[in-house]
Amino acid sequence: MHPQAQRVLVVGSIGIDTVETPFGKATDVLGGSATYASAAASYFAPVDMVAAVGEDFDLRQFSFLQARGVNLEGLEVVKGGKTFRWGGKYHFDLNTRDTLFTDLNVLGTFDPKLPAATRGSPYVLLGNMHPLVQAKVLDQMAARPKFVVGDTMNLWINIARKELEAILGRLDCLIINDSEARELSGSHNLIKAAANIRRLGPKTLVIKKGEHGALLFHGNDVFSAPAFPLEDVFDPTGAGDAFAGGFLGHLAAKDRVDTAALRQAVVWGSALASFCVERFSVEGLREVPPKALSARYAAFKDLAHFEAEA
Amino acid sequence: MHPQAQRVLVVGSIGIDTVETPFGKATDVLGGSATYASAAASYFAPVDMVAAVGEDFDLRQFSFLQARGVNLEGLEVVKGGKTFRWGGKYHFDLNTRDTLFTDLNVLGTFDPKLPAATRGSPYVLLGNMHPLVQAKVLDQMAARPKFVVGDTMNLWINIARKELEAILGRLDCLIINDSEARELSGSHNLIKAAANIRRLGPKTLVIKKGEHGALLFHGNDVFSAPAFPLEDVFDPTGAGDAFAGGFLGHLAAKDRVDTAALRQAVVWGSALASFCVERFSVEGLREVPPKALSARYAAFKDLAHFEAEA
Repeated sequence: MHPQAQRVLVVGSIGIDTVETPFGKATDVLGGSATYASAAASYFAPVDMVAAVGEDFDLRQFSFLQARGVNLEGLEVVKGGKTFRWGGKYHFDLNTRDTLFTDLNVLGTFDPKLPAATRGSPYVLLGNMHPLVQAKVLDQMAARPKFVVGDTMNLWINIARKELEAILGRLDCLIINDSEARELSGSHNLIKAAANIRRLGPKTLVIKKGEHGALLFHGNDVFSAPAFPLEDVFDPTGAGDAFAGGFLGHLAAKDRVDTAALRQAVVWGSALASFCVERFSVEGLREVPPKALSARYAAFKDLAHFEAEA
Repeated sequence: MHPQAQRVLVVGSIGIDTVETPFGKATDVLGGSATYASAAASYFAPVDMVAAVGEDFDLRQFSFLQARGVNLEGLEVVKGGKTFRWGGKYHFDLNTRDTLFTDLNVLGTFDPKLPAATRGSPYVLLGNMHPLVQAKVLDQMAARPKFVVGDTMNLWINIARKELEAILGRLDCLIINDSEARELSGSHNLIKAAANIRRLGPKTLVIKKGEHGALLFHGNDVFSAPAFPLEDVFDPTGAGDAFAGGFLGHLAAKDRVDTAALRQAVVWGSALASFCVERFSVEGLREVPPKALSARYAAFKDLAHFEAEA
């Protein structure tokens, strides 16, 4: 962790997931956007996590996050509540999945309350939640954060378009996947889609393309990051959140949001996502040795390298 | 063109195309894999083109290729024959197309005859043709060429699998797109697909992914090249052939087939493909100014650049 690393505020969901992939099944395992994103960001910067669980949740599951410097003061245990549960089954191509069940439980009424100490957070990650809940987070900030990153999903594009557009105007950076970018923009061409989306607010946009890497749009700059070539993706769950956590964690660590830092952040996000999908649940993010992290970044560098014209 | 540039032999089709895209329609325009590939390769190396047309073909259409140093000695004008004609309509996403008509004409009985001077060609490109026709080209070579590159398509995977596997064993490099790689290998994961395909023969493999760039597999090396971010693709026809021509042209120019040269070749192929799709038919490849070529390569370099870990 850099000595000048700034704090990262992560607000999102905590879930108990049941996941089936072509490689096996994991029942009642730790999940949720806040969990994945906080774990990934913790490799770069100190993290404050704001989320909610029910009384059924075994808080010892978060001891690995605490050991990684994640502050859980903002974790609410809802009296009499049950934790969000999600079940999904991935198809053989791992790009599509069926949701088998969704029990929103405490997530359905999640009303994030930021501890006083986090209201001045310079780097803020709004995990995938209803845009009105995302707005509630920003409403509690003492001052405009230095960099606000938001995630969203097709559901909100479909059922809360107006509220989503309102929050887009308050983001510095939106991170979405390619199908969401196409749906949100109405354009199949991702370069056009990016231009359309950025007109809605976020000056910086990251489009995640799964096995095809990611695109970063910032100012007039376009950056194309490769995906790590994995023969087996064991469990794609949380890859997007790990990406977002690693991405914002790097920016907070450098305390810079210029093009060079953003390009590196996309690669760090991709690296953390690649560790995430190599194991079930959050297993791949529990304890990545520093050498393995550096080696993965170097592998991305090698993957994309070619010599200048000569 | 490099002073040490070696000759490139291109064998493929010549067509009269009628193409409809969301941007317009081009009727009875010049096409064919040999045309696109020869035009692209001519920016790097001297080219010998072997192909066939009917008596209906206006040979003046090739004066731009001759001006670019393409030798047409191997162009056969079939007596009483008609030129191959193809009509297609691209869907709005430009990734899928309907073939409206295919009149094979002289292509249906194409029996390539290599002029004596081309039988020692060190760099050979076998355009997308029946694998038995591709084999006939190699059978005429005086010696094993230094580097043989082949293209193919789903049709041959489906109806001539055995013949295709036989020719794969004689290629140094196969260039195919992602859907073809999945079909040929039976694996959805492109990293696994690449391993399966390389077991069939070609030590070097390029998988083209359209808007997502291209992957190169060579030895234990994997290279991920970005795609040039184009807001509008006017006509995708010939992009794959332009890629192959630019790719092999660069290798012939350098007279090297090591990893560094192959990585650059993938980028040059992508650059030529990007010029190709910006106009209808071969218009985009007629005369790219050297400065525009260099600038496009530099744009790819910038697109993929990020700083090492720090």
